[in-house]
Amino acid sequence: MESVSKNKIKEIRSLQQKKFRDELGLFVIEGVKMVEEVIQHVPHLIDCCIYTSDYQLNNSNLSFPHFQVDAKTLGQCSSLKTPNKVLIVLKTLKNTHKEVPFTLAIDGVQDPGNMGTILRLADWFGVEQIVCSSNTVDCYNPKVVQASMGAILRIPVIYCDLSNYLASTTQPVYGALLEGKNVYKEKLNFEGILLMGNEGKGISEDLLPFITHPITIPQFGQAESLNVSVATGILLSEFRR
Amino acid sequence: MESVSKNKIKEIRSLQQKKFRDELGLFVIEGVKMVEEVIQHVPHLIDCCIYTSDYQLNNSNLSFPHFQVDAKTLGQCSSLKTPNKVLIVLKTLKNTHKEVPFTLAIDGVQDPGNMGTILRLADWFGVEQIVCSSNTVDCYNPKVVQASMGAILRIPVIYCDLSNYLASTTQPVYGALLEGKNVYKEKLNFEGILLMGNEGKGISEDLLPFITHPITIPQFGQAESLNVSVATGILLSEFRR
Repeated sequence: MESVSKNKIKEIRSLQQKKFRDELGLFVIEGVKMVEEVIQHVPHLIDCCIYTSDYQLNNSNLSFPHFQVDAKTLGQCSSLKTPNKVLIVLKTLKNTHKEVPFTLAIDGVQDPGNMGTILRLADWFGVEQIVCSSNTVDCYNPKVVQASMGAILRIPVIYCDLSNYLASTTQPVYGALLEGKNVYKEKLNFEGILLMGNEGKGISEDLLPFITHPITIPQFGQAESLNVSVATGILLSEFRR
Repeated sequence: MESVSKNKIKEIRSLQQKKFRDELGLFVIEGVKMVEEVIQHVPHLIDCCIYTSDYQLNNSNLSFPHFQVDAKTLGQCSSLKTPNKVLIVLKTLKNTHKEVPFTLAIDGVQDPGNMGTILRLADWFGVEQIVCSSNTVDCYNPKVVQASMGAILRIPVIYCDLSNYLASTTQPVYGALLEGKNVYKEKLNFEGILLMGNEGKGISEDLLPFITHPITIPQFGQAESLNVSVATGILLSEFRR
């Protein structure tokens, strides 16, 4: 059995930072369930696998480097407080946006938990791609990957200049705005672009002119706003119902 | 100006643990916005206020003890990584459940962020009370309070034996189950009890017999499940639309 080098451990650890993920084109997925999904579905994307003796890696015919390590070494690679028994280093994908029936556009969401939850629910509702402004949290951030529950493997996420993207489309652009029209009264098909804004500031001012259909979720109680991932879930549900 | 005792600081710090919140009947709210809401609306619930010189406390006619401290002392009281400039210690409320048109029932949600988000969206949709199983995360947990964005001040949360509670009601009980009926096809009014389960395990087996209307959010993509707070948001929206 080959043993893993100190430099490789250091490299994996560095992938907790966006700078190194961008430089190396790699990111980390942790946990048995996601690792097994990766090995089964996208083995060609695997850079390497690190696991402890607690994990049964079926290592016949594996096409990627794999290293059994002690729990301490795994802990050095892991971004989790309580590290799992296996993690995989994967190649990031450079996706480009396409003309698909339904796109979710994200303008500046910052919280990794929100972004991961948005990926997960986009996966639930069958969203074909997510196009993000370049100041949106990195989809390969370990907390995003973890909260996405595998959705990061299935939905293309594209970072670009959203104003260029929205300027070039002929599809309807639905924007979630507090002063939008009551979404319950709109006739919606699962077609177009749904634009969601930042947690505190909402949608940037320079993107407002591209919104053809401002929509809102009516408020019945006293809360001032909804969490962006919950609002995205409710609106996607409205497009699908 | 009175100065705060070391014992009081220690007491406030201890409120990060449920055991001491229960014993003392107190909890902490942090941040300017929530503090101002508390001072305006529920001053009679305030045990004391701790603030740094950065915060302008309008201290004419205040009916509660208030202590200006240095940033280090505030940090000792705070549960936040980056403490704010003011926090308030409040009395917890012992609520009891009532017969109201619409109740949200929570069975064993564990993650404080999920619970806080559920409180916030229940507040948005005008839910009258939240009834929780006793193994649900404490609503006065600092992370729940923070994520609730003030909803903890407005919605009564009751902890009790859910099977007793559900056995005693004559209202319809809607349960979120993967194998429930398509919620988009149900005729719903904002009346009854909506029961949501734990993040991983769903609704406990012993509560299933009380469900009169099993419902589900149809899945269109490949995700295996939805986050419980997002699912609660989508279902509450269905009851309100």
